[in-house]
Amino acid sequence: MNQQIISGNAVIGQSGGPTAVINQSLVGVIEQLRTHPQIGKILGCLHGVRGIIDDQFIELQDIPQQRLERIAQTPSASLGSTRDKPNAEYCQKIFDHFAKHDVRYFFYIGGNDSSDTCRIVNELGQKSGYELRCFHVPKTIDNDLMHNDHTPGYPSAANFVAQAFMSDDLDNRALPGIKINVVMGRHAGFLTAASVLARHNDESDGPHLIYVPEVAFNVDKFKLDVERIYAKLGRCLIAVSEGIHREGHHKPIAAELAETARGSVETDAHNNIALSGTGALGDYLCQAIRDHMGADTRVRADTFGYMQRCFIGSISPVDAQEARMAGRKAADAALSGNLDGSIAIQRVSDSPYNVEYQLIELSTVAGKTRTLDRKYIVDDNNITDGFKQYLAPLVGNLPVVESLRGGIV
Amino acid sequence: MNQQIISGNAVIGQSGGPTAVINQSLVGVIEQLRTHPQIGKILGCLHGVRGIIDDQFIELQDIPQQRLERIAQTPSASLGSTRDKPNAEYCQKIFDHFAKHDVRYFFYIGGNDSSDTCRIVNELGQKSGYELRCFHVPKTIDNDLMHNDHTPGYPSAANFVAQAFMSDDLDNRALPGIKINVVMGRHAGFLTAASVLARHNDESDGPHLIYVPEVAFNVDKFKLDVERIYAKLGRCLIAVSEGIHREGHHKPIAAELAETARGSVETDAHNNIALSGTGALGDYLCQAIRDHMGADTRVRADTFGYMQRCFIGSISPVDAQEARMAGRKAADAALSGNLDGSIAIQRVSDSPYNVEYQLIELSTVAGKTRTLDRKYIVDDNNITDGFKQYLAPLVGNLPVVESLRGGIV
Repeated sequence: MNQQIISGNAVIGQSGGPTAVINQSLVGVIEQLRTHPQIGKILGCLHGVRGIIDDQFIELQDIPQQRLERIAQTPSASLGSTRDKPNAEYCQKIFDHFAKHDVRYFFYIGGNDSSDTCRIVNELGQKSGYELRCFHVPKTIDNDLMHNDHTPGYPSAANFVAQAFMSDDLDNRALPGIKINVVMGRHAGFLTAASVLARHNDESDGPHLIYVPEVAFNVDKFKLDVERIYAKLGRCLIAVSEGIHREGHHKPIAAELAETARGSVETDAHNNIALSGTGALGDYLCQAIRDHMGADTRVRADTFGYMQRCFIGSISPVDAQEARMAGRKAADAALSGNLDGSIAIQRVSDSPYNVEYQLIELSTVAGKTRTLDRKYIVDDNNITDGFKQYLAPLVGNLPVVESLRGGIV
Repeated sequence: MNQQIISGNAVIGQSGGPTAVINQSLVGVIEQLRTHPQIGKILGCLHGVRGIIDDQFIELQDIPQQRLERIAQTPSASLGSTRDKPNAEYCQKIFDHFAKHDVRYFFYIGGNDSSDTCRIVNELGQKSGYELRCFHVPKTIDNDLMHNDHTPGYPSAANFVAQAFMSDDLDNRALPGIKINVVMGRHAGFLTAASVLARHNDESDGPHLIYVPEVAFNVDKFKLDVERIYAKLGRCLIAVSEGIHREGHHKPIAAELAETARGSVETDAHNNIALSGTGALGDYLCQAIRDHMGADTRVRADTFGYMQRCFIGSISPVDAQEARMAGRKAADAALSGNLDGSIAIQRVSDSPYNVEYQLIELSTVAGKTRTLDRKYIVDDNNITDGFKQYLAPLVGNLPVVESLRGGIV
């Protein structure tokens, strides 16, 4: 800590699934770095580490602040993203290019896979004796980074999910039936749990059932759950994570279905299975309900898909601000002489809502997955009001709705 | 026209698929009716005509204006909706209940199926000699009512589709591949065509291909279209209507796929096939691309589903105002002594954007479907800039985005 501040150029990259606020972090790093004379060029690598080895950089240090602000407000990764996971050979190439461009600072904005990339690059830098400062800036709609209260990108995605469930609950009241919405989240149920914010007025508000991947999913129990709510309310709105799996199985049901349909499962370089972009899980659950309650039952499923991760119309102001600060804090850490680390958001108080930004070891977040605390999960099919209190300050104000009818649904 | 203004109670109902602004029309009727001494009670029938025959009414005349405003801003049908299509026996019951409650004014807010219901009820009223004034207030995200420039509900749904495509285009730039989004629209391509608003900066903006149900869909041609764009840009964003069908076939491909999967097709009382709530069309098109371009091609599909019709976060201010005015104008027409009719929105000028509300015959809209004018369709796979000019004043301001990179996608 507080070593000499070396002079040289900086590289910033963005990685993994895009979010609505990942460009806020990019701009946060840029605007802080460019106030320091030790930093020469600020280079953006296009499509993450891929852009480094392909020598695809653009200079970022001279962009007018007004344009930077517009970029900050634009969802998805402006530099492009990648799912490449560097091996030793790949990293050697990264160093060759860093040396060639006199790069001494590397900022990588991404999730746990990206922080692991950052850690490996950093360790190879240390071994090779090349003076390099590596910093990870957190980003993931999955909210699954260890030692973070929450992660930039999640609150905006949660805002979208909350508004989508509010809207769909009103839709389902107007034309009652059973409605299943499949939400992103391979291993962690944070985003699916965000649907709980749609409950605002009374007990009849949906979602009535919420299934997260932290607990095993039992389709027979699911049928009975739905039947019970339907008998009581004449309708049922359900949030299901795309990552739900059967008891004793690690593989999500969605992956089983994809395997059956295609004969094989598509995975990326991190062995993540492609679950989104298919309606198979929703169709399967619809059919289970029809088999149980009769073919005439009005049952529908929607899969929210990619739009939940960077919908331009549901950016949380808190999220935008925190993503910006996370970028600035990473640059500050580098320019205070720190060698490496990851920025983590810690909640200091709930009322008024306040956070602080800590610099933590790369290895504490790299490649690890945080899941939803069991204290927020009710049995195997619901989320507590406590989770609502955790989430509410993050997502910003949600629209106010009014009902004409008392208990009538 | 301008007959005697009879005294009595009024019934208002909402019907068909909900929209983001259908409660604006409800409130428009209520606030205008309650200023007139001839109107006694203003009754809302719950779940459309179903509420009339089940005697499920609530009184609306005394709701404070502030609460009415909150209801107006709430998406989906506050009174509940229905897909019931009354036959002669059903209509007889409607009259029995109208007579019982001294109902002399009936306002039905809905699409072309609902205006047909309104027409039948009206004709039976005339035959039976029961003095009843029947008015249809337009509402449909499909934008498919005859003799309307556009219909309340459509601009807000179009706003959602535009924002979803803007967001997904940014997502697809960051992680390039082939992306298909399936948009609502059984027979009319207006909502799918709204995706054209996502193109804002340059030629590389998606959607790059747009398929509407007004022209036959050829899957082999589709494969070549996608291959051509992908070769040029390294990515391809595609808008597809759920209602696309093969040459010489009336049945949508989505219905063929549902039939194959389930052995039968689910239809409502209006013989409308349930196309939403299934990812089958998207999966089918993905597979077609993989078969053509290789299994390694990154290709995904999302089906927007129900959220596009009443998403609370994308209400167009113009739409909200026009829906309110359509309700008021229907009440005005009734209280000016008109016997029946449908309110139609006509565009008076583009710059400044201005509309007028006409009272047209029920039979001109009842049960008929308007489709997208061929002048807006380019070949079999795109939409003109002219359509953008038609649509832009309706949806309101869209967010501004900024790109870091010139031609690089």
